[in-house]
Amino acid sequence: MSTPTDPDRVLIFDTTLRDGEQSPGISLNTAEKLEIAQQLARLGADVIEAGFPITSPGDFEAVQAISREVEGPVITGLARTQTADIDAAAAAVRDAARPRIHTFISTSDIHIEHQLQTTREDVKGQARAAVAHARSLVEDVEFSPMDATRAELEFTAEVCAIAIAEGASTINIPDTVGYTMPHEYTAYLGRLYALVPELRDVVLSVHCHDDLGLAVANSFAGVMAGARQVECAINGIGERAGNASLEEIAMLLHTRAADIGLRTAIVTTEIARTSRLVSRLTGYAVQPNKAIVGRNAFVHESGIHQDGVLKEPTTYEIMDARTVGLEVDAIVLGKHSGRHALSQALEKLGYPVTGQALNQAFKRFKEIADKKKQVTAMDLEALVTDEMREDLGSYTLLWFEVEASSRRPPHATVGVQTPGGEERRGSFTGDGPVDAVFRAINAATESEGRLREFRVDAVTSGEDALGEVSVVIDVGGRPASGQGVSTDIIEAAGRAYVRALSNAERRAKLEARAETGEAVATP
Amino acid sequence: MSTPTDPDRVLIFDTTLRDGEQSPGISLNTAEKLEIAQQLARLGADVIEAGFPITSPGDFEAVQAISREVEGPVITGLARTQTADIDAAAAAVRDAARPRIHTFISTSDIHIEHQLQTTREDVKGQARAAVAHARSLVEDVEFSPMDATRAELEFTAEVCAIAIAEGASTINIPDTVGYTMPHEYTAYLGRLYALVPELRDVVLSVHCHDDLGLAVANSFAGVMAGARQVECAINGIGERAGNASLEEIAMLLHTRAADIGLRTAIVTTEIARTSRLVSRLTGYAVQPNKAIVGRNAFVHESGIHQDGVLKEPTTYEIMDARTVGLEVDAIVLGKHSGRHALSQALEKLGYPVTGQALNQAFKRFKEIADKKKQVTAMDLEALVTDEMREDLGSYTLLWFEVEASSRRPPHATVGVQTPGGEERRGSFTGDGPVDAVFRAINAATESEGRLREFRVDAVTSGEDALGEVSVVIDVGGRPASGQGVSTDIIEAAGRAYVRALSNAERRAKLEARAETGEAVATP
Repeated sequence: MSTPTDPDRVLIFDTTLRDGEQSPGISLNTAEKLEIAQQLARLGADVIEAGFPITSPGDFEAVQAISREVEGPVITGLARTQTADIDAAAAAVRDAARPRIHTFISTSDIHIEHQLQTTREDVKGQARAAVAHARSLVEDVEFSPMDATRAELEFTAEVCAIAIAEGASTINIPDTVGYTMPHEYTAYLGRLYALVPELRDVVLSVHCHDDLGLAVANSFAGVMAGARQVECAINGIGERAGNASLEEIAMLLHTRAADIGLRTAIVTTEIARTSRLVSRLTGYAVQPNKAIVGRNAFVHESGIHQDGVLKEPTTYEIMDARTVGLEVDAIVLGKHSGRHALSQALEKLGYPVTGQALNQAFKRFKEIADKKKQVTAMDLEALVTDEMREDLGSYTLLWFEVEASSRRPPHATVGVQTPGGEERRGSFTGDGPVDAVFRAINAATESEGRLREFRVDAVTSGEDALGEVSVVIDVGGRPASGQGVSTDIIEAAGRAYVRALSNAERRAKLEARAETGEAVATP
Repeated sequence: MSTPTDPDRVLIFDTTLRDGEQSPGISLNTAEKLEIAQQLARLGADVIEAGFPITSPGDFEAVQAISREVEGPVITGLARTQTADIDAAAAAVRDAARPRIHTFISTSDIHIEHQLQTTREDVKGQARAAVAHARSLVEDVEFSPMDATRAELEFTAEVCAIAIAEGASTINIPDTVGYTMPHEYTAYLGRLYALVPELRDVVLSVHCHDDLGLAVANSFAGVMAGARQVECAINGIGERAGNASLEEIAMLLHTRAADIGLRTAIVTTEIARTSRLVSRLTGYAVQPNKAIVGRNAFVHESGIHQDGVLKEPTTYEIMDARTVGLEVDAIVLGKHSGRHALSQALEKLGYPVTGQALNQAFKRFKEIADKKKQVTAMDLEALVTDEMREDLGSYTLLWFEVEASSRRPPHATVGVQTPGGEERRGSFTGDGPVDAVFRAINAATESEGRLREFRVDAVTSGEDALGEVSVVIDVGGRPASGQGVSTDIIEAAGRAYVRALSNAERRAKLEARAETGEAVATP
């Protein structure tokens, strides 16, 4: 249980893997979620909401794997008030050193009437039973009255009091639809404290959405009103316009600490790297002008500002880019660097890679080093996460050939290795060269993938930059995503497409297994 | 002059073309700035800060063109307190129906001591002289004490009082480095009103940066404290983490109007299109989870949310996507659509295109329609802005051929038409296929461009989507950007690269002209 011991300590509850992963087009597999969770532990997150176990076997598996392998943070799984939800969440977090169940039910009339189609009395009963059942399974239970900011305060207060009476040690007040304003949220929480004095004995938490661009400001208003847990996500991802950005709320409390007087346990120098990892694995770009983690967040363009910073950095800088880990230690490898140098560099980045994984990483490194003069820390990060995906690939792109011209339709031929190790060929003529490669892969794998989204980002800048392609494809009416990294954009696209197909296939198998009774979602 | 007539009306001051254009890597030419300014007028911006005329001949030319051609909004140019700055700004906005000069000087000791290297007394004198001089040239003068939020309040108040006494009708309080917090800013402005009672006779303005993720919340706090002008930028672009997002502050005031009681003149249905235009022309992506204008800002992913919205939209929606213009009228053209249908569709989108421009647009349309089954309003928008750039291109990509393979280095050959109409060829072998095209273009044009940034976005989704490539290249140590649109990513990249080269060349010529005495920046 996380009772408030230090009144000036704000707990950071990261929901990148739950609300964040609920973003359209994101579908992380267990290995990817585990990698993000490990990085969140390095970052110093206090609580990791690892998923919503009842919703799918994949979600259950990921929460369970994170509970077993990630040390440090409290690990929580989300659950509606239904017994099956709570049992699934309890089973998924059972092996965590510090497990938590997070259960919720709406208290707004608009949700109660239209969505739940029930009564306030029933909501109270469900909240009471859910918290009681959860507390019979774990010590640490969090309760959220969903859509609280649009709900009647007095009723929400009643429900919160019930949850506390039943043993919830964290009460989270979500601004589910991103509707509130800082002064309004402050007043709401102030009145809630007045109506529920026992709220002072538990941790008050805030969970704000960014629909009107106020998620961080509302979360901060909550903290100033007494909240000591902030639910947030890396890069602010999440439903619709997303959640409060973890990096923004953390750096706000850090930068203005002298005036605010509160602390988090966030290791700020891990922020940039966490942001890159999440962006890479989710395929969600961070815009260049995004606060804290945008490519240009610390870049001065105007002559006046540049002049000022040269004379005295603090004229235009309130934070040092190094504080958020933007200037990575100058790891630079080249084509003559050996296996040992690579292993050391990876270890320095926090990826202890040995044995077969090191051989595989070294092979990719050599391919890249042949094309690039210098391989930097950011390149290595990209390659490591790229390799991580490779282990899971049921298909592998072996080779490709493309001819593209403004004078005739492009033609592509590819070789793809199947999960069974067999090489299959496919070819296609038409549309753009990248599209021709995708359709040639469809032909080789006898798949019906259809491209929905396509995005390319440079991992580093310059002519020999690594390019990272993210695709979302539609297979049988459901989306699947994949990413690929290479100095060659067509190769990166092909790798991304093959992985998206593999992810789709993997999910289909997992779901088939669940349907045939080998369910993993119930204990 | 814009004196406050309606106490509930908040003026929207758009600085996309000044502070926004100051973002690293953005370099818009005059035609592009004019197109954005026309769209800002359609959007209902009250004031357009069109540039900083003294800084370059290009900036001067753009402010002048916008002053001459854009009807409706007040047009302003930025100026330091120097006479030459103010004279340049006055000359640039002279032909506007409602011209404004915006002059500024820092009032924070850190800026006064380290950057200006002068005294407070001198700052007062400069502010007095600058406002007086500006008022001798135009009726409408705005004054900003730069870095005000880190400055001593009493001194800032003195300087503001001087500016008002000299005739400034707008006083803008910038949070230049994005340092303040909503409650702090509220207190600051409250005390400023107390110290400078005459502030009630002019328009108080706010200008907030997003370094800690609070730009919109701080701007809103300013409005609640009495400010009736908000300086902001489309997509929140600007120095470092950028300015307050125009679309967020506008939709906040709109969505919560019943509680806030204030109004803007923003035509909300033009928001999405303005965002797309600015993103396209600046090459600055909007992240999918960006509030209001992100691709997923209105998309519900979780089953619970989808279920709720199906039962009753307001369960999870506080805004209708149509309010921000996200669902464009269903204009759909196909390969059999004629010139008249295209002309009508373009007119409906607000682009009256006739004569030779229509012929050119029709030719591109047919090329695209041959590859795509359906050409939508968003495709047309992309093509029109793409064509607009074409008029300015000193080089044109005529054709290309590329062979790419995982088994040997890619080879590219291109044909480029020079400004003189001559066709030149170039070829290159090595690195990725896109890089090979870029270097082949360098060979054909005898240029020394080096790629710095490369990005691809899909204009629409699906397999036959138009792709848009944005590049930033380095020519002689200075950045230049270009964008290109095509269903073929390699063609789009080639078009983007050739335009970046053309932009670099055009700027070099303009600067050479300025240096040889044909300066346009001084009246």
